[in-house]
Amino acid sequence: MPSAEGAPSSINSTETNGAKLEDLTADNLTQHVIKISSNISNERVKYIFSKLIQHAHDFVREVDLQRDEWEASWQFLTEVGQACSPDRQEIILLSDVLGISALVDTINSRQSPGTTESSVLGPFHNDSHFFENGDSISSTGAGDSMLIRGTVKDLHGNPVHGALLDIWETNGNGHYDMQDPEKDGPDCRGRFYSDEEGKFYINGVKPVDYPVPYDGPVGKVLDLLNRQAYRPAHVHFLISHPSFEKLNTALYNRESPRLVLDPVFGAKSSLTKDIVWCEDLEMAKIHKTRPIVRKVDGQDREGFWLLEHDFILADKQEVKKRKTHD
Amino acid sequence: MPSAEGAPSSINSTETNGAKLEDLTADNLTQHVIKISSNISNERVKYIFSKLIQHAHDFVREVDLQRDEWEASWQFLTEVGQACSPDRQEIILLSDVLGISALVDTINSRQSPGTTESSVLGPFHNDSHFFENGDSISSTGAGDSMLIRGTVKDLHGNPVHGALLDIWETNGNGHYDMQDPEKDGPDCRGRFYSDEEGKFYINGVKPVDYPVPYDGPVGKVLDLLNRQAYRPAHVHFLISHPSFEKLNTALYNRESPRLVLDPVFGAKSSLTKDIVWCEDLEMAKIHKTRPIVRKVDGQDREGFWLLEHDFILADKQEVKKRKTHD
Repeated sequence: MPSAEGAPSSINSTETNGAKLEDLTADNLTQHVIKISSNISNERVKYIFSKLIQHAHDFVREVDLQRDEWEASWQFLTEVGQACSPDRQEIILLSDVLGISALVDTINSRQSPGTTESSVLGPFHNDSHFFENGDSISSTGAGDSMLIRGTVKDLHGNPVHGALLDIWETNGNGHYDMQDPEKDGPDCRGRFYSDEEGKFYINGVKPVDYPVPYDGPVGKVLDLLNRQAYRPAHVHFLISHPSFEKLNTALYNRESPRLVLDPVFGAKSSLTKDIVWCEDLEMAKIHKTRPIVRKVDGQDREGFWLLEHDFILADKQEVKKRKTHD
Repeated sequence: MPSAEGAPSSINSTETNGAKLEDLTADNLTQHVIKISSNISNERVKYIFSKLIQHAHDFVREVDLQRDEWEASWQFLTEVGQACSPDRQEIILLSDVLGISALVDTINSRQSPGTTESSVLGPFHNDSHFFENGDSISSTGAGDSMLIRGTVKDLHGNPVHGALLDIWETNGNGHYDMQDPEKDGPDCRGRFYSDEEGKFYINGVKPVDYPVPYDGPVGKVLDLLNRQAYRPAHVHFLISHPSFEKLNTALYNRESPRLVLDPVFGAKSSLTKDIVWCEDLEMAKIHKTRPIVRKVDGQDREGFWLLEHDFILADKQEVKKRKTHD
């Protein structure tokens, strides 16, 4: 039962913040709502809410939102909220398919030119186990063997030792572990550290295109907009280190035909990589990569897939210095 | 488990709708998202989504939304969605306190000049029993006896017979029935029809100021914005008739000190009424109103409260005609 306990009820002249009893029309309502909401000292909160109210009202006025459309909107948002669970974040998915998450990412990473571009976090990040370089984060049989390796560096090319890499990807069937009824623990995800030379190498599987969760209300929106639901194959990377800005990014398979149609707008040229077929079994041995057999030009060949990338992190001190000079 | 079943995955040139693989920046992302979402034939849906994306992105860009603010936003919206239940609509409440519901109401009733103004529906409308004129919709002891009466008319002053009036109000303690743990059925709400002269008279209780549901995420927003949570005392009216546009409105008690601070922006001058003390016991008898005893100038007086209003409905045919001429 909703309770009135603690509900602020006091009325005094400052609280009205200069607002008057007036008939609220489509033209003066917005300013009235902003005025009533401006009697606070936190300037950032005041600013965000004033702009939120302004833009939301501008939208309603511009499209001349009809009552049945407003009803459909709150019913939809209720469904989206109720579809959320510990294993599913439908609100983030909505933000993703409307390009809001990608925009927030883009805005927030503008501050670090020269560093690796960011990409959307998506709804599938989760806790995972710690691994050593050379370990495999995927249970066998879940997809084509792929070695993921590279170096973590700073802007001046110096290796970053002890960067925590948190990576996650689908298995070969296009499912994250939490979507797979046969998995009850982490799979195809893990955390590990870059070594003294900034290097990392970990074994996973070649990612495949997979649909964003499609059986909920956001799936209906993709349907309504005649948009395809498959994300281009990728591996997520969340890289952190005490001295550097946290990097939330992903690497995309250049082979995917859905790069431009990414339903969550995460794919970027600088993050699009060739996942190459490699038959260097000595290299496999060094990195503890499990070779597979694959038909190449009609012949069975032993090898593995290789995804290689160097990540460049932004130094916290330098970002701070630049911000101060702005 | 989210399922990929039925997820649209086909890729062809028309689906990209002219979009190209390009690096998405804060400046070109919005147009890209709109383009990807424009490959549909329903012009209204296309228009609404293009404007929704435009305004949402404009907001994010203008306030330079930070990652932690975006995270707080989706966490908040998740809480709002999950606070919804058959007895509580927190998404509507959010729309209410941001003035969006009031704006939608205002926009949608602009089309009918001369008719009774509309007001916000609020989250407490619910099913109720049918009554006859003269019945009481409130259980005894729940508040001060109040007669609600008036006439339903068309724009030309003709009485409207058989208009269905659906009314609801708080009891004298400021609770709607669904908020009251001691009520397990409808109370202080009911449906009845206007008579052959367009008249209606029904007995309820004098409404009091009461807080909107305050113990959920939207209550936190009111707190954050230093806004008071009490609505000015009012009675809701939803009036329908096959020949007339549905009227969703409310009458407000002029005595309330919170008319200008209404947290949901429903109060309007034309809907603000004097609730008068009436000692005409003959009139009470005719309308089956139960008199109460109240101190007036230090003396016990027998009487009842009276809320009187004539509602003017918009003829569907006339609205249609006017729309065609626009």
